[in-house]
Amino acid sequence: MDERIREHAAVLIDWSARVEPDDDVVVSVGPDAHELAVAVAEQLGERGANLLATYGSGEITRAYLDAHDGEFEEPVHERALLEETDVYLSLGGGRNTSAMADVPGEVRRGYRNTRKAVRETRYDTRWVSTVHPTRSLAQQANMSYEAYREFAYDAILRDWESLAEEMGRLKTLFDDGSEVRIVSQGTDLTMRIDGRTAVNSAASVAYDSHNLPSGEVFTAPYGTEGEIAFDVPMTIRGETIENVRLEFEGGEVVDHDAERGAAVIGDVLETDAGARRLGELGVGMNRGIDRYTDNILFDEKMGETVHLALGRAYDACLPDGESGNDSAVHVDLIADVGEESRLEIDGEVIQRNGSFRWEDGFEARQ
Amino acid sequence: MDERIREHAAVLIDWSARVEPDDDVVVSVGPDAHELAVAVAEQLGERGANLLATYGSGEITRAYLDAHDGEFEEPVHERALLEETDVYLSLGGGRNTSAMADVPGEVRRGYRNTRKAVRETRYDTRWVSTVHPTRSLAQQANMSYEAYREFAYDAILRDWESLAEEMGRLKTLFDDGSEVRIVSQGTDLTMRIDGRTAVNSAASVAYDSHNLPSGEVFTAPYGTEGEIAFDVPMTIRGETIENVRLEFEGGEVVDHDAERGAAVIGDVLETDAGARRLGELGVGMNRGIDRYTDNILFDEKMGETVHLALGRAYDACLPDGESGNDSAVHVDLIADVGEESRLEIDGEVIQRNGSFRWEDGFEARQ
Repeated sequence: MDERIREHAAVLIDWSARVEPDDDVVVSVGPDAHELAVAVAEQLGERGANLLATYGSGEITRAYLDAHDGEFEEPVHERALLEETDVYLSLGGGRNTSAMADVPGEVRRGYRNTRKAVRETRYDTRWVSTVHPTRSLAQQANMSYEAYREFAYDAILRDWESLAEEMGRLKTLFDDGSEVRIVSQGTDLTMRIDGRTAVNSAASVAYDSHNLPSGEVFTAPYGTEGEIAFDVPMTIRGETIENVRLEFEGGEVVDHDAERGAAVIGDVLETDAGARRLGELGVGMNRGIDRYTDNILFDEKMGETVHLALGRAYDACLPDGESGNDSAVHVDLIADVGEESRLEIDGEVIQRNGSFRWEDGFEARQ
Repeated sequence: MDERIREHAAVLIDWSARVEPDDDVVVSVGPDAHELAVAVAEQLGERGANLLATYGSGEITRAYLDAHDGEFEEPVHERALLEETDVYLSLGGGRNTSAMADVPGEVRRGYRNTRKAVRETRYDTRWVSTVHPTRSLAQQANMSYEAYREFAYDAILRDWESLAEEMGRLKTLFDDGSEVRIVSQGTDLTMRIDGRTAVNSAASVAYDSHNLPSGEVFTAPYGTEGEIAFDVPMTIRGETIENVRLEFEGGEVVDHDAERGAAVIGDVLETDAGARRLGELGVGMNRGIDRYTDNILFDEKMGETVHLALGRAYDACLPDGESGNDSAVHVDLIADVGEESRLEIDGEVIQRNGSFRWEDGFEARQ
């Protein structure tokens, strides 16, 4: 076994999920994530936790949904399992990222709605999602398998403690600030952030962060004004999206276009009232992620990028008991801020051309 | 997809497990049983049952056990799942039937003991075990993959209703009888069966039968006298066993030998007092199984064989509330009765040289 698989498992179990002896752990295993699952099992055994492996296969879900009449019932047994689960580790990695491409959106939504309590019960556990680098993910990234593995482990095997400390600086600035401004080519956007709390997403449940890799600081903005160009491509609902431009007035999108995929963005915006407002402003700070791979788990954490999400805000960013922007969707769009760009909080430049003000080279990059 | 995979799934769901709409179903998927799992998912969707897939991997269990200190705790979450489960379908099929070969027996036993409540909760569901024909099972059978698939589907895709009817005849004879005698080369054995109930194991929970394939009638004998030679080879605890001979007096083994594997048989017999007595007499009646494949799920159901198990008896064969022979082990041994053999109940010949008395050719085979 590649020693990095064991290191990945160790980061997941110790840093991310904070597994303790006697924890009841569910490990969801993707069809091609077997090797990572073996490494995770080994380390769960070592720590004296209990292990139940589930099988997360898009092909199985597709076959099930395709044959179903759409009158779904809540899976009571799955909820019972999760109610007694302390830690839920999702090891993604299938053989085809398009395995569910032909399941109609309506069927997916019906299934998803029936599973709301199951999902919320899972969110009450110490849950972490990661992926095992597979050939299918390499293909999605337009990379060789060998190169993709290098990429993925660079992203996953970080010095998380020191990244958490660095990200803590930006979190403090966000928490103390009132207004964020992003200026770049085609972009001049301001958002209110006062009263909101930023999340230092350091790939650990101890930081309210549930992705491995992670490496972003995000908050829930409001009162957005101006325009922004998103130059990092994405796949949304199976469609390629390129160079989206959004224009905001009074917190809402009032105009949009795109070089590719404008219709998908239009559909997203028409979902509901909340889909026209922002749910998230995130700043990617994982410098192990140095390229776009068409996988949001990685892309949105890429160093020298910011992302904004149309739709639902995370409660963690709101004052206790309050909810932020509500919507059925949460669609991230990503902008490169590595060149001719600056991020300001209350008029003060925090990041310029990709460098933060506490980094060497910040002055030089003016 | 090979249409036989869909037929296998249909037999499993409809004939074996009697799945109904809204059933909460757990499907345990072996690493190479993915295709069967897809077919099962399709048909569970069609019937409107709920599906949770678990991952049954010997390599994961081995990694977990190998790293564990042996002080196991009960997996409360898994028990909670099974308490709300109506149907449990185990789809076996890994990549290596020896995946757990180096896990010490002591560790397995400790793990097994901690999982007693989990196991019993599973036995309270409509559970069925089957296997997807894999390359690893073909190898174990010393067969090509292509030939093994033909073999496996011949065994699985039977006319179960008519086999159940035929097996019902033998069950009635066992239920009404007092003494069974088996006579063959090297064998002259008598067992008491009065007061015991035979199980018509017709591969369906409706018949108290939990294996697919099945196709045997079994009961719980006692008071065994005489000797028997088992000429079908087996693998027990990783060792090849050939031509075991047992001698009984007053219901207990008083002498044993074997051409190969005598030491393993000796170990089994020394487990506890119950290991020296029989827990099961079974008659194989699945004529789709026409050869030995070193897989007890198939071998013990082979037409024209009988098997005896040292150790634990099944409660289903005993009067309500009574338990039969008790032991930590249940080890099956198989004898060919296709030639120069007869099975008698109370002095009447029921099967001669492999043919039952209700079959064409019974007289001719005298």
